[in-house]
Amino acid sequence: MGFSVADAVIPACAVVGIAFALWQWFLVAKVKVSAYAPAGNGVHGRPVFRTEDEGGEDTRIGGGGGGESDDEEDGGDGPAAVARCAEIQNAISVGANSFLFTQYKYLAAFTVIFAVVIFLFLGSVHRFSTASQPCQYTKGKTCKPALANAVFTTMAFLLGAVTSVVSGFLGMRIATFANARTTLEARRGIGAAFATAFRSGAVMGFLLSSLGLLVLYVAIKLFGLYYHDDWEGLYESITGYGLGGSSMALFGRVGGGIYTKAADVGADLVGKVERNIPEDDPRNPAVIADNVGDNVGDIAGMGSDLFGSYAESTCAALFVASISSFGADHDFAAVCYPLLISSAGLVVCLVTTLFATDFFKVKTVRGVAPALKLQLIISTALMTVAALVVTFAALPAKFTMFDFGEQKQVKNWHVFFCVAIGLWAGLAIGFTTEYFTSNAYSPVRDVADSCRTGAATNVIFGLALGYKSVIVPLLAIALSIYVSFTLASIYGIAIAALGMLSTVATGLAIDAYGPISDNAGGIAEMAGMSRRIRQRTDALDAAGNTTAAIGKGFAIGSAALVSLALFGAFVSRAGVTVINVLSPKVFAGMLAGGMLPYWFSAMTMKSVGSAALKMVEEVRRQFSTIPGLMEGRATPDYASCVRISTDASLREMMPPGALVLLAPLVVGTFFGVHTLAGLLAGALVSGVQVAISASNSGGAWDNAKKYIEAGASEHAKSLGPKGSEAHMAAVIGDTIGDPLKDTSGPSLNILIKLMAVESLVFAPFFAAHGGLIVN
Amino acid sequence: MGFSVADAVIPACAVVGIAFALWQWFLVAKVKVSAYAPAGNGVHGRPVFRTEDEGGEDTRIGGGGGGESDDEEDGGDGPAAVARCAEIQNAISVGANSFLFTQYKYLAAFTVIFAVVIFLFLGSVHRFSTASQPCQYTKGKTCKPALANAVFTTMAFLLGAVTSVVSGFLGMRIATFANARTTLEARRGIGAAFATAFRSGAVMGFLLSSLGLLVLYVAIKLFGLYYHDDWEGLYESITGYGLGGSSMALFGRVGGGIYTKAADVGADLVGKVERNIPEDDPRNPAVIADNVGDNVGDIAGMGSDLFGSYAESTCAALFVASISSFGADHDFAAVCYPLLISSAGLVVCLVTTLFATDFFKVKTVRGVAPALKLQLIISTALMTVAALVVTFAALPAKFTMFDFGEQKQVKNWHVFFCVAIGLWAGLAIGFTTEYFTSNAYSPVRDVADSCRTGAATNVIFGLALGYKSVIVPLLAIALSIYVSFTLASIYGIAIAALGMLSTVATGLAIDAYGPISDNAGGIAEMAGMSRRIRQRTDALDAAGNTTAAIGKGFAIGSAALVSLALFGAFVSRAGVTVINVLSPKVFAGMLAGGMLPYWFSAMTMKSVGSAALKMVEEVRRQFSTIPGLMEGRATPDYASCVRISTDASLREMMPPGALVLLAPLVVGTFFGVHTLAGLLAGALVSGVQVAISASNSGGAWDNAKKYIEAGASEHAKSLGPKGSEAHMAAVIGDTIGDPLKDTSGPSLNILIKLMAVESLVFAPFFAAHGGLIVN
Repeated sequence: MGFSVADAVIPACAVVGIAFALWQWFLVAKVKVSAYAPAGNGVHGRPVFRTEDEGGEDTRIGGGGGGESDDEEDGGDGPAAVARCAEIQNAISVGANSFLFTQYKYLAAFTVIFAVVIFLFLGSVHRFSTASQPCQYTKGKTCKPALANAVFTTMAFLLGAVTSVVSGFLGMRIATFANARTTLEARRGIGAAFATAFRSGAVMGFLLSSLGLLVLYVAIKLFGLYYHDDWEGLYESITGYGLGGSSMALFGRVGGGIYTKAADVGADLVGKVERNIPEDDPRNPAVIADNVGDNVGDIAGMGSDLFGSYAESTCAALFVASISSFGADHDFAAVCYPLLISSAGLVVCLVTTLFATDFFKVKTVRGVAPALKLQLIISTALMTVAALVVTFAALPAKFTMFDFGEQKQVKNWHVFFCVAIGLWAGLAIGFTTEYFTSNAYSPVRDVADSCRTGAATNVIFGLALGYKSVIVPLLAIALSIYVSFTLASIYGIAIAALGMLSTVATGLAIDAYGPISDNAGGIAEMAGMSRRIRQRTDALDAAGNTTAAIGKGFAIGSAALVSLALFGAFVSRAGVTVINVLSPKVFAGMLAGGMLPYWFSAMTMKSVGSAALKMVEEVRRQFSTIPGLMEGRATPDYASCVRISTDASLREMMPPGALVLLAPLVVGTFFGVHTLAGLLAGALVSGVQVAISASNSGGAWDNAKKYIEAGASEHAKSLGPKGSEAHMAAVIGDTIGDPLKDTSGPSLNILIKLMAVESLVFAPFFAAHGGLIVN
Repeated sequence: MGFSVADAVIPACAVVGIAFALWQWFLVAKVKVSAYAPAGNGVHGRPVFRTEDEGGEDTRIGGGGGGESDDEEDGGDGPAAVARCAEIQNAISVGANSFLFTQYKYLAAFTVIFAVVIFLFLGSVHRFSTASQPCQYTKGKTCKPALANAVFTTMAFLLGAVTSVVSGFLGMRIATFANARTTLEARRGIGAAFATAFRSGAVMGFLLSSLGLLVLYVAIKLFGLYYHDDWEGLYESITGYGLGGSSMALFGRVGGGIYTKAADVGADLVGKVERNIPEDDPRNPAVIADNVGDNVGDIAGMGSDLFGSYAESTCAALFVASISSFGADHDFAAVCYPLLISSAGLVVCLVTTLFATDFFKVKTVRGVAPALKLQLIISTALMTVAALVVTFAALPAKFTMFDFGEQKQVKNWHVFFCVAIGLWAGLAIGFTTEYFTSNAYSPVRDVADSCRTGAATNVIFGLALGYKSVIVPLLAIALSIYVSFTLASIYGIAIAALGMLSTVATGLAIDAYGPISDNAGGIAEMAGMSRRIRQRTDALDAAGNTTAAIGKGFAIGSAALVSLALFGAFVSRAGVTVINVLSPKVFAGMLAGGMLPYWFSAMTMKSVGSAALKMVEEVRRQFSTIPGLMEGRATPDYASCVRISTDASLREMMPPGALVLLAPLVVGTFFGVHTLAGLLAGALVSGVQVAISASNSGGAWDNAKKYIEAGASEHAKSLGPKGSEAHMAAVIGDTIGDPLKDTSGPSLNILIKLMAVESLVFAPFFAAHGGLIVN
């Protein structure tokens, strides 16, 4: 493995990405939060906001109809408010930190156990023999022993797991660092607040994608010291990286999803429905847990998820490339094509970010949503050009790709089309999602209108909207698969997935922007900032709801492509060339696989429901036993709510996690590769639909509620105001959507990806020893 | 085709079945409804119940808290009440008749057009040549021209369509004949009422299954006059019968489903939620439409659906048998094995019915549910024995079955196992459904309990319950497929489907029992019968809710098997031997197919929602503009609500119908057989899950509400009574479940079956001219 141009470009881009992230962080950090807080204003470590002894200009004490008069409150944005913001930020940060560290203890135990399982299963393929063996794909050559692959796969797994956790953790840190800063910047105007929130999202996006790229590149280089020219073995082992990334993402998504929605649903059910107090009102004991949840679920979970997709699609592409002519010719630059595309993506996203933060600054509330949308369009357009350059620079004009036992002739421009169709399919999915979840268009308005006749019609319309919203994304995915599969077989699909993910830094930036703005709004409310500030943070938040849905659309779209690529790599590695639907084993597997997303969703939704019930009881208990809480004269016990969410999340993430991890192992071991292939195909076909419809129904309900609350049109006014019958119905829909859009829906991405990557990693074992019952 | 023992047994059993149905009808007819109605009590043709000028013993006038005191009302069961029952029955019957006849006009137009399409597509296979052609499967022989197949397939299609419509219509007639009789028999006790409702269900079950069998047998005989020993052509044409049956079922299910739920949701939203009046209160203008809906949706629609499944599985089995050794040997008894199994099923069901009506009479309220459950167990056990006898009598010990281009060795006991596994899988599905939808078990009670914290948690728990309830049915279906597919290829699957459907007469009886009891309860309420009577009809109705869910479980389970059998027959007929998941065409088709159930559900749910909104407006309008309506002094305008449901149903059934019918035609014509095969597989894998979870969520919400209303335990009492917060939350869940369980869920059965049978019928065209774009 001599020095190649890839050895210069990839690390350089990764370092530039990291540097850019740090620069953005520096800019965010310039906003000071706690400097000029007056002494004695609240007790540190125990968040006390707006207590009676708090003097000065802010005399507002909780109370019913908060926010009706500007005059009364305009003074609320001074030093006292800043101090409160700092305190709330601290409480959220401490809660998120403590949850993640507790979660990491469990994950560490899991990771060690699973690493042992990987080592034992893969080591057993050739009975732990240390002898070299004939290569599987390159006939007549000798490759490293299966035992070495077991060792290096396990190492790659650990590396992937650690990178995933670090990515999620860094995302959470920057988000909890940025939320109060966004609130405070809102005093200077919508533009400044937007820039802060968006820059913070960019920090996460760039750190995560640069780190993922760099670690993977270094791992390839280090593993190469042992493997030398046995590229089959090298890139087989590297697939462990994807498995590590995705298995952490499973718990991040599921655990974080349960955490955030238990708190959110619990807070809403008592606060908004029973007590009729606003969202994020500091009197609500679950409010801190709710805001912590945004950071551990929507930020850390989402980060791990997209990191997993990125790692998996790269691993799938690398593996297939290694058993194609690139591997046979030892063309390192060509094998590294997926990494080069990601490198180019970093540069493209860097430029794209400047469009939002420097070239065209957001100046009005109306400018927020278009600015975010423009990010998608610019990054897609620029990336198309960049991909063209990279493709012609890195790939030979003609080569062959492994195609289920044969070698398929592929030309470099075929591969470019794979990148491009992935990219543009992503954009199509993003825009469809926006259409179905933004309250600027008729679907959400129809849902809002159906609240007129109550919660039941709202739910019926919302479910129907979610179902309908799968049509275009599924056709876009099906078309991408058809084109990329036809052009370059499995490699094409992996590259299409990578194309969709090449702008992941921008995708993550606009996605992370959502929860940061949500938190900023929460902090504004809790700190008793003026109505003006809250209107600004609300506007940021409303746009964030839609971008969150778009982010979920990307995540599921890329997950579908990734898992099909992994699926192809799995059957290739298992030495299978045909998976015939017309065979009992395959079809039975497909039906059972189609059932798994439902089983999984049932578990996660029930978990949220049960945890929310506990939260409701605790919140009700506090309201009825703490004197003066409702009047704002006493402080609720936030910590007990944080504890309920933490416990529920950690306990409840186990069964769905076990389902996802055990299903492929059990099916592969007992029923063999064909049934497992059927299982994966069935889970993919059925899971994508459930995931998309769940997140879009949820997003639509949320924005239908916001539409009524904002009352920006005659129609919206006729449904509102807050507290009207229609609004109450909208709140019920929003609450139902919470677990759908933030727990069960997005977790399904991981289900379909993780089962596929696990099958890929364990493929040698299944091929050697699988099918105990059926074969 | 000489005379065979099958020629004696099949018609004989069919005639016995019809005779038994008529005898049951005669027994039901002995209950007199209108004989002793006093003159001048209500105006005929315009239903007027409980108007002010109605004197006599029944002095109860509408008013709030209906049904709190026995004494007040016990006199309400006399001649005046009987007259009111007769009148209401008449109104329901007139409404149902008029809807069905209007619907039939549309269906007639559709049928004629589609018959022409079938003829043109199939005729074009060999360019309308009248020359004989070489047989496709029996090499070296000459078969009838493709044009003849086009003609006979079209005829079979028309025959199937007419039989389906007649079955549905007869079911509706007997149901509207029996509803008031059940109410009146409730005066004599729960046992008499149960017998009436169940006997009426049996009339429908036996008429439908005997008629289906007889018409199919006669068609085979008549078509044989032309085809002689060209059995390939004969049984290819016969598949049109299945298509005819299923395409009528599409409109029956979808149209009827929209009708009934628009009325039901509309009635509930205003009546129960806003006005707080009981279900089926005669002051509610939508109440007659609601009761009509039960008959056109749950009875006529369900009848057509199961008739379609029955016809399709038989056609699939017959077709495969004809191209196997049975066809080559011209063994008529063996080819007719599916019909013989159905014949045996009729006898078994006859005996089973006597267990409920004569051997073990129901005497108490608690006895109703076990009696219905016993029906399932007895029929399954007896049928297993009967299948054993039929199998060894009709089938040779060894033979071969067509297996995707090859002939597979099969033994007769293999086929017996296929019947048996279908039968017992059906029972497993039935019991699982009961567990998840009956309020005797913890899942529904948990859902009821979640109403404590409001509608949102109720919906979250209900959705999770529905998702969870797919696990066992899917595993049962997957296992049946695995076993029957392995033992006897496609034939095995078709026979397993037929096994599940062999006890269809009993299945339909207990299924039709549900809406009849529901109507009986409605009539009791509307006629102002005493509380005692209403408690009895409510008990019948509660058991009916669960049996309806069980019926839906059967319908979807058999639909899954049927459509896989049709799918196998389709690829066989199209001359394809492998459908490789690892091919772009197939996988893209699978993803798109998996999306269709969502698209379809979105359409049907939105239709129900929109129609319900119109209904709500009309009901609200009547309450606010008709003076004295709320006080029971004026009669609502029932007819306008009937009209809204009718119009909505007829208009809204078109787009989903077009989707289902056009999807296979478009995909087959433009993308070819492989993509179409992927589409069917994807729709099957994803649709089964959606259908089961939708019906079970809906059933659970309905029974959770009933559980709270009945207040039969300490726990239930703590949630109730009617009108409590928890009860209101339960009503919202029930309303959301209505379109899921009675419109979108059950319609999906038809989606997956109809697309498969349509593909089968058009297979020669797709094989000859399909794939315009892709090939």
